[in-house]
Amino acid sequence: MQNVITYGQAPELEILTWLNTETPLCLSNLRGKVVVIHAFQMLCPACVVHGIPQASAIHELYSHDDVQLIGLHTVFEHHDIMTVEALEVFASEYQLTFPIAVDAPSNTGAIPKTMAAYYMQGTPTLIVIDQQGQIRLNHFGRLSDMQVGNFIGQIICEE
Amino acid sequence: MQNVITYGQAPELEILTWLNTETPLCLSNLRGKVVVIHAFQMLCPACVVHGIPQASAIHELYSHDDVQLIGLHTVFEHHDIMTVEALEVFASEYQLTFPIAVDAPSNTGAIPKTMAAYYMQGTPTLIVIDQQGQIRLNHFGRLSDMQVGNFIGQIICEE
Amino acid sequence: MQNVITYGQAPELEILTWLNTETPLCLSNLRGKVVVIHAFQMLCPACVVHGIPQASAIHELYSHDDVQLIGLHTVFEHHDIMTVEALEVFASEYQLTFPIAVDAPSNTGAIPKTMAAYYMQGTPTLIVIDQQGQIRLNHFGRLSDMQVGNFIGQIICEE
Amino acid sequence: MQNVITYGQAPELEILTWLNTETPLCLSNLRGKVVVIHAFQMLCPACVVHGIPQASAIHELYSHDDVQLIGLHTVFEHHDIMTVEALEVFASEYQLTFPIAVDAPSNTGAIPKTMAAYYMQGTPTLIVIDQQGQIRLNHFGRLSDMQVGNFIGQIICEE
Repeated sequence: MQNVITYGQAPELEILTWLNTETPLCLSNLRGKVVVIHAFQMLCPACVVHGIPQASAIHELYSHDDVQLIGLHTVFEHHDIMTVEALEVFASEYQLTFPIAVDAPSNTGAIPKTMAAYYMQGTPTLIVIDQQGQIRLNHFGRLSDMQVGNFIGQIICEE
Repeated sequence: MQNVITYGQAPELEILTWLNTETPLCLSNLRGKVVVIHAFQMLCPACVVHGIPQASAIHELYSHDDVQLIGLHTVFEHHDIMTVEALEVFASEYQLTFPIAVDAPSNTGAIPKTMAAYYMQGTPTLIVIDQQGQIRLNHFGRLSDMQVGNFIGQIICEE
Repeated sequence: MQNVITYGQAPELEILTWLNTETPLCLSNLRGKVVVIHAFQMLCPACVVHGIPQASAIHELYSHDDVQLIGLHTVFEHHDIMTVEALEVFASEYQLTFPIAVDAPSNTGAIPKTMAAYYMQGTPTLIVIDQQGQIRLNHFGRLSDMQVGNFIGQIICEE
Repeated sequence: MQNVITYGQAPELEILTWLNTETPLCLSNLRGKVVVIHAFQMLCPACVVHGIPQASAIHELYSHDDVQLIGLHTVFEHHDIMTVEALEVFASEYQLTFPIAVDAPSNTGAIPKTMAAYYMQGTPTLIVIDQQGQIRLNHFGRLSDMQVGNFIGQIICEE
């Protein structure tokens, strides 16, 4: 698989607000689980057609004791259109059930804080963090469902 | 084909603004062409996954001397989210090239004016108007590409 | 649409045997209907993946008073493998319900008689014959469902 | 995942002949690799549409040092049609490149020997054998690509 980079320890998520979860999630409380972050923008076609269905499939396939899927809305353009309120409508219309975090806007630029901390190149990006909190995959673009299943399966089994 | 209704003369479009066309279109100037209206909302999943690709295929298949495809953004919910500005971003990100009309908001209710005039039941809706300005199809939901091609082909040939 | 050729009068089918019909069909008895011939080989991947589902869709969409769909098994290679008996198993396993004609083998070469008479270049080929028995489309390769629906719709309407 | 059965030690394959490999494979020589067996019949639609593309994806995704994909032609019906010669044409037309084993016919009944030894219920069936030669998955029907990738990934990682 191309584009696999080990960045070391995953930086904590910096989040403005959450959808689809009663309590905010934080990586430090998810140790022991594989964490899969699907970074998207609601008006990104490749996210809507490919990434979000793949994220939903991950959320449905795995036991939530083993794998925590998190949608991350990393708005880096058209900030006034892809607002939290717009995202709420989008998540409702598309019937998304996995937890969605809204990446905290930057104080100084267009790239939100978590997106910057992980050096993401755009959307969709798929990030896999292992049970010890290490980044194991940080992939911009499309991976096949078989590639993603294989990658997560290998990480699960390491424990 | 189910859901085929002849409503008689097609009411003129009532439009707030247009995208992807230098001059507004009006049905009275399109006599002699088949007019196909794809009514959608930008956050309607069935529109994004099925209706808009079908509308694009119509726009690409037919000579624009024979068939005029018009996207019609019929916002009947979440009006503050699916704004003209949001639609412009959507149309740009999805690289839509066909003319898109923004249905004029109602003065009194949620349903915009053209949607109401055509008694549309929701989105996506496909409307076919013949060369004499008569409504020949007014279908809420999905039709197969073969059904749509067949229907338009039959209308074209009548002339 | 590319590859549209008017060959004039459609030559009569030369058929070894039929599946899925109690009585053989012949073009001279089908005047007044549009006849659509889907020429295929049972081990041709593009036929199995694209052409046969499209043929089934035509068979399901149109009234059989208006359009007669005929599958034509034009074996021009591997004659000892793609036998009538093999075709019967194929048609049963794929649950094909439209009439299927087995093109009559040549006395002298690999190309069967109907395939030769229509100058077909390979499989899948789609042929459309109008109500007067004139060939209106003779296309080798893939057409989209919308193209096919449009073409048949235009021919239907001519009558 | 449903339908996961551990049968213990995988019985050796009983094979009439091989395609796409210079030397026959045997499980005892594949210890240390994960072996994935895709059992199919060439005229089984679910195999052609779903199973064989999935088998090809497995063959392409994994290093052949880690995972050995084997197609197994388990003819249990229409034996006179789905012959070795017919399979050779099929594999050539579909451009299959992974090794394909022809299951040895039974001396007494319709079910070939390897199919019987693994208690397969039909086609397509996917079998995963671990590095120690233990059957870990024996699934009749469809699994998603993500499920298959996940399952193989977990087995790879065990070693």
